[in-house]
Amino acid sequence: MSIKLYNSLSQSKEEFMPVHPKHVSLYVCGPTVYSEPHLGHAKTYISFDIILRYFQFCDYKTFYVQNITDVGHLVDDLDEGEDKILKKAREANQEPMAIAEYYARNYLDLMDELGLKRPDITPRATGHIPEQLDAIKKLVEKGYAYEVNGSIYFDVSQYPGYGKLSNRTPEDMMSGTRVETRSEKRNPNDFALWKYAEPEHLMRWEDPWRGQGYPGWHTECVVMSTKYLGDSFDIHGGGMDLKFPHHDCEIAQAHCLEQAFAKYWMHSNMLTINGQKMAKSLGNFITLRNACDQYGPLAVRYFIAASHYRSVVDYSEAALHSAKSALQRLHQVTRNLRQKLPENPKPKHQHFQKFQEHFYQAMDDDFSTPQALAVLFDLTKEANTLLSEKEPNLDAVVDAEYLFSTMGGSILGLIPETLEEETKAGEHLDQVMQLVIDLRKRFRNNKDYESSDYIRDSLHEIGIQLKDGKEETFWHWTNK
Amino acid sequence: MSIKLYNSLSQSKEEFMPVHPKHVSLYVCGPTVYSEPHLGHAKTYISFDIILRYFQFCDYKTFYVQNITDVGHLVDDLDEGEDKILKKAREANQEPMAIAEYYARNYLDLMDELGLKRPDITPRATGHIPEQLDAIKKLVEKGYAYEVNGSIYFDVSQYPGYGKLSNRTPEDMMSGTRVETRSEKRNPNDFALWKYAEPEHLMRWEDPWRGQGYPGWHTECVVMSTKYLGDSFDIHGGGMDLKFPHHDCEIAQAHCLEQAFAKYWMHSNMLTINGQKMAKSLGNFITLRNACDQYGPLAVRYFIAASHYRSVVDYSEAALHSAKSALQRLHQVTRNLRQKLPENPKPKHQHFQKFQEHFYQAMDDDFSTPQALAVLFDLTKEANTLLSEKEPNLDAVVDAEYLFSTMGGSILGLIPETLEEETKAGEHLDQVMQLVIDLRKRFRNNKDYESSDYIRDSLHEIGIQLKDGKEETFWHWTNK
Repeated sequence: MSIKLYNSLSQSKEEFMPVHPKHVSLYVCGPTVYSEPHLGHAKTYISFDIILRYFQFCDYKTFYVQNITDVGHLVDDLDEGEDKILKKAREANQEPMAIAEYYARNYLDLMDELGLKRPDITPRATGHIPEQLDAIKKLVEKGYAYEVNGSIYFDVSQYPGYGKLSNRTPEDMMSGTRVETRSEKRNPNDFALWKYAEPEHLMRWEDPWRGQGYPGWHTECVVMSTKYLGDSFDIHGGGMDLKFPHHDCEIAQAHCLEQAFAKYWMHSNMLTINGQKMAKSLGNFITLRNACDQYGPLAVRYFIAASHYRSVVDYSEAALHSAKSALQRLHQVTRNLRQKLPENPKPKHQHFQKFQEHFYQAMDDDFSTPQALAVLFDLTKEANTLLSEKEPNLDAVVDAEYLFSTMGGSILGLIPETLEEETKAGEHLDQVMQLVIDLRKRFRNNKDYESSDYIRDSLHEIGIQLKDGKEETFWHWTNK
Repeated sequence: MSIKLYNSLSQSKEEFMPVHPKHVSLYVCGPTVYSEPHLGHAKTYISFDIILRYFQFCDYKTFYVQNITDVGHLVDDLDEGEDKILKKAREANQEPMAIAEYYARNYLDLMDELGLKRPDITPRATGHIPEQLDAIKKLVEKGYAYEVNGSIYFDVSQYPGYGKLSNRTPEDMMSGTRVETRSEKRNPNDFALWKYAEPEHLMRWEDPWRGQGYPGWHTECVVMSTKYLGDSFDIHGGGMDLKFPHHDCEIAQAHCLEQAFAKYWMHSNMLTINGQKMAKSLGNFITLRNACDQYGPLAVRYFIAASHYRSVVDYSEAALHSAKSALQRLHQVTRNLRQKLPENPKPKHQHFQKFQEHFYQAMDDDFSTPQALAVLFDLTKEANTLLSEKEPNLDAVVDAEYLFSTMGGSILGLIPETLEEETKAGEHLDQVMQLVIDLRKRFRNNKDYESSDYIRDSLHEIGIQLKDGKEETFWHWTNK
């Protein structure tokens, strides 16, 4: 078995052949930390989290770097306009680095809440100024970049491959630039590597040109990925909107620095709302905080996993609601299986093996999470049939629970080791419920069925159902 | 009213006069991120958290910077030995920056768990290499530092004030250095600002001397504090063990860079275990993770707050246990007060005013948290007397609850807005308890006292007590 993935660079599915056998080096472009993440950010990072988890599950040793952009990302994503963080700092009357700190922590908290595995390194752009200056100086020395008024631009005429990732011709690119702006660039398609900073600019560093400047947005990822993953690494990922200019600019620089750079480029598609891209700049966003509070972080995760990472997903409240109930079905069947588990369960891998095969086939085929989820729901039906039997085969219960915990848990990250209601019930509620069950038994022993029915009805309103077993009575949450 | 604090520099209590009225700029030396924090770290950061909270409560606008050391802190704290992070990375066979990332996140998680207010900026040493190089170059130009074999040392003979914070003479210092080591320094007391790095050294940056090097431990805090707080700022804090050499080295550099630097120096004292300093290097430490798991983060907080920040605190299990029960008393009285609160309670500040005054007097006097806690316990007695009355004065209840929530909550951080058991009880347990209370009423109406007593006794075993009011029956947790 091998993993096939869609390489944006070749525009085709390729078999994954790592640079170093059984190792995966992964770099994903992280957020610019100047505002609350919205649901669109979650799509990118959840997608790559599942990809990472699948590699780990397949016994690859992973090394995952995801940067934080805390300087140099300008408002219009091209080379004009104010730095996003400086703009926010000015509006909030705060230190730029306090803005970056606040939103970085906020972002990292949300990623934790969504159950994302933490990257091995989360390097910051401001933490790699010498490395960026070093790369830029080399590009100038080699003739791929030039200085104008203390700013350094990459000269795209020196790199004919420019635009190959996004598959754009120079004419395509021209149409995207603002020709009316007077520019110091030689060619409107040239992009900034370093910008001259006036003395009043709040984030600036010494440079060998006009004295002080700050990095452009496109160099940080080149130097940080290769610093930590080596000149040649496996996968470079990010949102689809980063293909151009960001990733094409990275490729141009890495090529001219004679770095083999990323072997595979992977892009997660957009999240739309009413068919339009969800973006801070468009003002049509749902914050991730709100989505997590309203539906729960795992429902958000489910909503993203329910579509392929290369598909566009349209947001609607209904879609989140249905993600939440689908998730609850998975949790319920897992909970029911776990209640039946013997002590020290050891899966024998004899039952439901074809579900496992189909699941891996789906994941091996460019991480097709929708198909993988479909397999989980087929398995849910089988598991419910098993559970409805009077004395379910315990080996089958153990095997089924193992599959939900690995495929739905370890890989998709949707089924935690301890399920919500198991915790909610808690030690004390269970003790009080034992008392209630005792009292009901007393009433029934005294043939006071009015009172015992009163207990059953009252519990039902609370959302608790009693189930009389042979010896004991159990209670569980009803699905309301 | 004014705040007096002990300035380590003058070795006396001084009235706090901020650089800018009603503003406090605070820099506290953060951790070197190469291992699990132990209880000794908590003492430093909890102490400064309470100091910060008190300033905020007194309407100061605070700006708090706490660094993270991720390079340059050598094993023996002087200028010899391996970099602590590199050593750990070598042992764990991992990237040094992955080690720093892991332990930084781990540290920040624990600080969140302890309820510490997050610093406004958490700058990293590796994120400020250009700034450090800039300062070091200036010191060389001014003749305060010299180069040997690509390393730069501060020349203490050029700064006669060296050692003034720790009150050491050059002879005192000499006794602490290892004279037997062959050294390239001119004077054994000179300290490293920058160290030459062999090509195989994993963390190194370009420098203007022998090509590549890495910063010493003592320059980062000078450049990061002044970069974000200005050349002249209010308070520089840290653990007592940082006085020498770290803080004396900082003062020397800042002086020679003509920076006014910190106006007040504050040092929290050591945590000992059987009278010996708790330290990673001594191997006699309790990890903060274990302490939080075993006693709860707020009990750890209480244990630290129960002593003055300038006192040595000796760790023992008994001390943590008694901290936990003292904390529970504070929580219990607050919980009882909160249960009696009317809707939309508005404190009138008429009752218990002398407790508030005494609390502020204690805090104004160099943040005397033990005295402040004593006031809270005096208030606890008064509040319990109030609560034992048949119809307690509601204005008094509101005022008392306000005092526990502000003094014990906002300032000391010991009483959260929502108390643990209030959450543990939760919506569902309360609903089930209402059913149990209903059932007991049924039994009593039917004069079945055996069954109603059975309910009371069973609940008592669970740790729940019933209290019959005029109209209704309430339940609360017993203190077991």
